[in-house]
Amino acid sequence: METQKFNALMEEKTRELERIIGGFLPPEEGMQKTVLQAMNYSVLAGGKRLRPMLMLETYRMCGGDGDEIEPFLAAIEMIHTYSLVHDDLPAMDNDMYRRGRETTWKRYGEAMGILAGDGLLNYAYETALSAFERVDQSDAAAMGRVARALMILAGQAGVYGMVGGQCADVEAESCGTPLTQGELLFIHRNKTAALIKASMCVGAVLAGADAAQIRALEQCAEDVGIAFQIQDDILDVEGSSEELGKSVGSDALNNKQTYVTLNGIEQAKKDVTMMSERAAALLAQVSDDHDFLKTLILTLIHRRR
Amino acid sequence: METQKFNALMEEKTRELERIIGGFLPPEEGMQKTVLQAMNYSVLAGGKRLRPMLMLETYRMCGGDGDEIEPFLAAIEMIHTYSLVHDDLPAMDNDMYRRGRETTWKRYGEAMGILAGDGLLNYAYETALSAFERVDQSDAAAMGRVARALMILAGQAGVYGMVGGQCADVEAESCGTPLTQGELLFIHRNKTAALIKASMCVGAVLAGADAAQIRALEQCAEDVGIAFQIQDDILDVEGSSEELGKSVGSDALNNKQTYVTLNGIEQAKKDVTMMSERAAALLAQVSDDHDFLKTLILTLIHRRR
Repeated sequence: METQKFNALMEEKTRELERIIGGFLPPEEGMQKTVLQAMNYSVLAGGKRLRPMLMLETYRMCGGDGDEIEPFLAAIEMIHTYSLVHDDLPAMDNDMYRRGRETTWKRYGEAMGILAGDGLLNYAYETALSAFERVDQSDAAAMGRVARALMILAGQAGVYGMVGGQCADVEAESCGTPLTQGELLFIHRNKTAALIKASMCVGAVLAGADAAQIRALEQCAEDVGIAFQIQDDILDVEGSSEELGKSVGSDALNNKQTYVTLNGIEQAKKDVTMMSERAAALLAQVSDDHDFLKTLILTLIHRRR
Repeated sequence: METQKFNALMEEKTRELERIIGGFLPPEEGMQKTVLQAMNYSVLAGGKRLRPMLMLETYRMCGGDGDEIEPFLAAIEMIHTYSLVHDDLPAMDNDMYRRGRETTWKRYGEAMGILAGDGLLNYAYETALSAFERVDQSDAAAMGRVARALMILAGQAGVYGMVGGQCADVEAESCGTPLTQGELLFIHRNKTAALIKASMCVGAVLAGADAAQIRALEQCAEDVGIAFQIQDDILDVEGSSEELGKSVGSDALNNKQTYVTLNGIEQAKKDVTMMSERAAALLAQVSDDHDFLKTLILTLIHRRR
């Protein structure tokens, strides 16, 4: 897809997603007002809504045209957001700024930072569960698709997905022994790729995709998630500090083991190319109408910042 | 019900619940082993399993005899446990011991305490969602009951339930202005009664109770939860420190506003009696076969420690 057309579509689709996600945020009122404010502050911090974008586009590519996807679009963004809110806490990464604003705990205090994360994770499920109210209650197959989408979401977000990856990452940083390639890939697969996988698979399941399509999209999502992380490591070595917004080479300075330090930059680049080509081929396997999603994935992976 | 018989039943039923809950805990293996250990350490800290007990007994009282309740029994205990794990964190209550053992963060570090709580909350939903696999996939009504039970669980656990109560409690303690009766009841209703309500209503919904029965049990659960908290305040003034395991009068020493300081001890006792009688009457409204559950509730409320 041509860049100009893609960019215009992206802008339009992002606006649509902002409207949908905003519609699911709780009103800031009642005696629990502060935690509600902290939750909304976190979600409205200006992310790119990549996960909901991947979910919605996969849903549409697979022929979905209902609105039971909408609560899930908000839910995956809430889960992604809660993970950032807790990651930023003093006992974790101790970050005070994110995207040019104070982090949630810095703004609302540490106790409220913990509660806002808890509130968001729980609200993600409250929101996603409301999808049951958008399908025919007497249609067991439709109810089953929502149930299955919920199981995928919960599975990828938890200890066998994102939380598991965070645990391994925290331990790797605190123990200091060098990571093996397998350990590094475990972290990338769980900390980053798991929610990408949840996004694409939830979209596919809700649209009624068959087992082979879902398997293909699962592999595609894993390639995208891991390639995205490796590109991060490459940019840390190669990117200009202006493009990246952080000091180049900071991983090396911090003695951080990355895909690049383990495999060398040439191999890392080759692997990113291989994974992005495989991801595109898997998409083509699922649907002929995959032009936007393919461009989105390639743009994500091959970003220069 | 006679005390001796009740105690024997309680012991037997608690063993049954320990077996069920234990069966849903994750194996401690893989690269995320530490967070899994921390999660299991927290759940196995020796709670009384009151919430699963109320859930199972309500389910049975309402005629339930399937096993789709079992994942929910484990899930409510995981949610209760995660709330304690996060409550104990340095930024919250900064507790180092609970039930004679180190708290989770004290044992596994603060980052792992945060992640174990997150992992437990998420695993509660993973677990509860597996109830869908225990009902007939072509039976829309059975799928609908599981969906409704999930919505109740999530609703009572979140910002319009337990998390909302915790937020109000944290703020009340940090700002120092005296609580009104309405504010105190908001905290009790959400911080404590919400999960009691979830327990009883999930049991009722899964058993197929009708709308009037569910409404009665909801009110019953709220009475139980609030009376339980007021009894806590009464025991703080009256209990012997040996029975209570904490210094008597600690609320007064900490200048803490309680139901007793707001209403006087005589009125507090009258209200506990009124609520427990109302709760028992509501149970009788739902079923003739409520003997064990009634004794359980009255024992809970009128405990001396």
